[in-house]
This record gives sequence, C-alpha cells and structure tokens, in this order.
Amino acid sequence: MKKSKHLPKALRPLVEASILEQIERRCVGNRGHNSRVLLGIGDDAALLKPAKSYALILTCDWFLEGTHFLRDKHPADAVGWKCLARALSDVAAMGGEPVCFLLSMALPATHTGLWLDQFLRGLRRAAERFGCPLVGGDTTRNRSILLNVSVMGKVRPDAALRRSTARSGDILFTSGRLGEAERGLKVLRGSRHGFDKRDPALRKHLYPEPRLALGRWLAESRLATSMMDISDGLSTDLPRLCAASGVGAQIQAGSIPSVRLRKNEQKHSDTPLTLALHGGDGYELLFTVSGKNLRRIPRSFRGVSLTPIGKITKERTLLLIDQTGNAAPLPNRGWDPFRGRNRR
Amino acid sequence: MKKSKHLPKALRPLVEASILEQIERRCVGNRGHNSRVLLGIGDDAALLKPAKSYALILTCDWFLEGTHFLRDKHPADAVGWKCLARALSDVAAMGGEPVCFLLSMALPATHTGLWLDQFLRGLRRAAERFGCPLVGGDTTRNRSILLNVSVMGKVRPDAALRRSTARSGDILFTSGRLGEAERGLKVLRGSRHGFDKRDPALRKHLYPEPRLALGRWLAESRLATSMMDISDGLSTDLPRLCAASGVGAQIQAGSIPSVRLRKNEQKHSDTPLTLALHGGDGYELLFTVSGKNLRRIPRSFRGVSLTPIGKITKERTLLLIDQTGNAAPLPNRGWDPFRGRNRR
Repeated sequence: MKKSKHLPKALRPLVEASILEQIERRCVGNRGHNSRVLLGIGDDAALLKPAKSYALILTCDWFLEGTHFLRDKHPADAVGWKCLARALSDVAAMGGEPVCFLLSMALPATHTGLWLDQFLRGLRRAAERFGCPLVGGDTTRNRSILLNVSVMGKVRPDAALRRSTARSGDILFTSGRLGEAERGLKVLRGSRHGFDKRDPALRKHLYPEPRLALGRWLAESRLATSMMDISDGLSTDLPRLCAASGVGAQIQAGSIPSVRLRKNEQKHSDTPLTLALHGGDGYELLFTVSGKNLRRIPRSFRGVSLTPIGKITKERTLLLIDQTGNAAPLPNRGWDPFRGRNRR
Repeated sequence: MKKSKHLPKALRPLVEASILEQIERRCVGNRGHNSRVLLGIGDDAALLKPAKSYALILTCDWFLEGTHFLRDKHPADAVGWKCLARALSDVAAMGGEPVCFLLSMALPATHTGLWLDQFLRGLRRAAERFGCPLVGGDTTRNRSILLNVSVMGKVRPDAALRRSTARSGDILFTSGRLGEAERGLKVLRGSRHGFDKRDPALRKHLYPEPRLALGRWLAESRLATSMMDISDGLSTDLPRLCAASGVGAQIQAGSIPSVRLRKNEQKHSDTPLTLALHGGDGYELLFTVSGKNLRRIPRSFRGVSLTPIGKITKERTLLLIDQTGNAAPLPNRGWDPFRGRNRR
C-alpha cells in the first residue's frame, strides 16, 4: 500500500491516498505487536523477518458482496472481522499461528466514509484479537464491494497438519456445534428492523472465531492424524478430506453436535441435522485421531467441545448412519460457488 | 486450494473442484522449480520453507475486468501473464526475487472452459519465465472476472530498496521507455478486427516484463538510494516517492525516454511527453543514485536502458523543466481508481 503523509500542497494526495491514510490510521496501531514486520504499509511491498525453524503458511480468501455477505444486511464491522477471521481459519486448520495479512479492497465511492470506518474497526478488532497485523494490500474502486485477504502464518514443519493423512480406522472429530452459523444467516436474512447481536448463532455467523488455539494444540501434541476446517459444510468438506487421504468415512447422525433451534424455527427442510450437515461458514475444525490416542482427546478444549462423530474407513464411500443403525450415502449439499447451494 | 483427484463415484467432484483440477494440471508443473514449496495446491493452505538470512517480501494486486482489463479486448493469455507480471513488479521494486504466488479468481460460469484454459497458459508462461510457482488460492463465481495475485518474494534485508530513502541531490533515473504501454492500450482499444501482437507497444501493454534482474542488481550493488516501480504513471508515482522520502524533484522534459509515435498517431492531447508523464502500466523502475555513484550506472542493463531524468531536491515541490529551461509544476494526471484518469 502506498503511503503519503504530511504532504505540502504540490504533493496533495489523490483520493486513493486518503483512503490509504484512513486504513493506516485505523489498522497500523497493531503493527508493534509483531516484531517480524520490518516494513509495513507505505511501500511497494511489505518486508518480514521469517521466524527461524518454522515453515510459512500462505493462504487467501475471497469475501465478496452478494456471494459471501450482503451489503444491506451485514454490519460493516462484521464484514471487517469476518474477512480476516475466515482466512485465519485456514491457518488454524494447518495447526499454525498467524503472522500478518494483506488486504485487497475494491469499494464503491459511496463506501469510503462511514462504511469504511466501521469496516476497519471490525478488521482491527480481529487483527488484535488474533495477533495478526495488516502489512499491506491494494485498493481500487468497484461498483460492488470486493475483499480479498491473504494471510501468512507459521508452523513447525513437522507439526503441520494436512488433510491428506487420515488413515482407515481413525476416529473423526469435530470441534464446536455445527449448523449455528447457517442458522445465524437465516436469522439475519429474515430480520427486517435490526436484530439482536447477542443471539449466539448470529454472533457465530457475524463474528466467527477461527480455532487457532485448538489447531495449534492438536498439531503440537501430535494427537491429530489429519485436519481441515469446515467452511463449506460437513457434507462438502468431509468428502474433500476423504478424497485427499484416499479413504471413506461413516458418520453417526446422532453423534453430530447440532445447532439448537427454537420451536418456531423447526421446519421440515431445516432440521438441526440438515443444518449441521450442510450449513457452511462455521469454521470449526474437522480432525482425525488414531485409536490409541482417543483417550487423550478431552471433551472440550478451552471451552470448545470436541466430539467424535464417526470413523474413517478403507472403503471409499461416505455413509451417514441414522439412529436406527441404517446406513445411507451422505448427500453432498454444501456450498459450491459454481452451482450455488443445492435445494434441500 | 482444494484438490480432489481419482474420486470414486460417491466422492464425485463439484464444479469448483473440476476448475481446481484444471488449474493444477496447467500450473503445477512448475512446482518442482522451487524446492521451498513443502505443500502446494490441495490443502487448506500452502507450506513454504523460508530461505535462511533473507527477509520476505509480501505484496498483492487487483486485476479486475473493466478496471484493469477489458474482457472483449484483452486476450485471455495476456490477462494470465499480466496479473502475475504486475504483482512481480512490486518484488522488483524492492530489489527482491520471486518465491511463489497465490491466485484468487472469480469467474462467470461462461469463462471456465476455453477462456480459463488460455488464461492459465499465459499465467503459467509468466510463472515459468519469472521462476514463481503457484502454490494456492481461492476460486469462486462472479458475473465479472475478478483476479487478485499475492506474491511472496525474498531479499537480503540490508539490500532491500525502499521508496522512502531518496536524498536531496540524488539523481533520478528511469529504466526503459515511458508511455509505451499507454500507447499499446490505445492501439488495443482502437482495434476492431484483431491486432498485430508483434507491435512493441502493444506487447509492452499485454505482456509487461517486471524489471526483476535490474531491481536485484541495483539492490545488491548498493547503487540505488531508493526505488519504486512506475505502475500508475510517472506523474502519479514520482510524488509518492518524494512524499515518502520527504523531498521534492525537478525533472527535465527533454531527458525523459518517451514512447515513439507514428505520424498518424500524433494528436495534440497525446504527445510522446504526455504519454510518458501520465501513462501507466509500464512497470519500469524509478530509482535514485547519489552523485558519487553516478558513473557506475551503465547506459543500459541487460538491454534495458537506464536514463537520468532529473534530480531530487530539498524543496518539496515537483517541477517539470522544459527544453527552454522554463520550470512549471508537474501536473499529477496519472491513475487514481477513485477519480479515474484526469482529462489531458
């Protein structure tokens, strides 16, 4: 990002520069948190000092108006928080720690004032919460709001957890409760005159918490054999883990920790189970543990529940076992941007 | 990026996965070029081994349809080449070497076939040419084509060149010839029935060459005192260098190496000088050299001309000196996405 401060008249900043100043004012306070940043916002690129004996993690995530959030429904500070939090979930899924991030932002001219200010507040809150300073980016104008976050993290190379290393016989775990963020999205979509930000499902949708501490503990303790985050829904992400590992899985419908619905929310199409299976955006961790380490996994880690939901099989099929013991193929109904979400 | 290969029927890939397979097939051949890549496309994030005693360079760049390229005018392979080349220009501007990149891509469903294939060919050609393998990214659907490239590079920490370190009395240099890419854009815009890809200005617009070898030589030889790339035009980028360094500059209109126009292209509004001053997208390097090192700068470096065009001044003004010796303030008419390009 370009930086232009204290300019005399002849060097008066352009509009883009004033936006960058706003970013710098709002977001650079936390640069000091990270002594690895040799050069942050203001030059052609950022300079970082890598940590000795760590591998680097690199990942990036789109966060687009209309696809990932709604301009008129999602508060600007939640857009700021979430665009970073969801990128950090990929760092958590490798068992790593955040180092820094780049923000690419394209905004309509109407959104460079109050909206940008609140967006940057949410972004900064997440950056401070997760110890991940903004070090650069790119800004341009666009009719719709486009965001892209690139995160650098670090992990001990021998501790990093992949999705390709699950083994037949491993027990499959999920953190947290699945389907909550999906329910939160429905609450938000249905809201006409504001909403209660304290609603836990809504909070999980608006301000997700990447499971960084859990991911790091599972990696450093060598307790997990494989791991990924559930971003598109269990029924979409579990096939990815299985495909990468060359295995299948059986999951127990009755074991899946599912969102709790109020009575008036119970509909045929939206049971707690369908939300838990197919709802995206939750950013819980899906991981596998070998039989011999099963007892070493606690019921919860720092307040986040850890629940066995099934097992990895040699047969490369995905089965959902209901409470009467009947097995059926797991329908893949999660999120695919090129198909949209399937009807349920 | 997610990876799903050799899937049995029950794990049949979604549409997104088939696009990722196409990316992997086209672009991962060059992973082997870089032994620093521990884990590339196919997991939650990429894993890299940092090079000892180097600092890391991080930068990202938008490349958006309508803003940075035109769907119906720019060949898909040029879009692929250029989205990486322009991000690498920021690595060149720090005096660094490329390590790897992430690609974020949002495409209309109509552009996942032939267009994507040609795009990936151009991207791969650039990745191989500049030794910068693709290690991950994010893919989604969108009505217009959105691209964002994040690059990681490396540089010796004490050699890295910044834009904030120009000193009064330094001589200002540019590489190459300015305004060529701008003329290339005009040729492209004016073309109705195809164009001659061999036209040098058009080539510079479509397939720019980041000045990586030059940037690295200037950094490692300690000959430059400051550096940046000219991406938005000299009249926009020089004020940025001066503002960052707290200095001003005088440039000699007659010294600026300007694009050559054909007779029928000469218009009042588009002289070689206005194109050289205000034309963007050229990715030449702008750098400063102290008086004592002036003789050590050759006239050209590996075929790229190096031309002194003015000097850095203590007075924080920007002056353009014409061939009769008259000084006038340098008008800032380059590219600002929030204003569009000024009329000339």
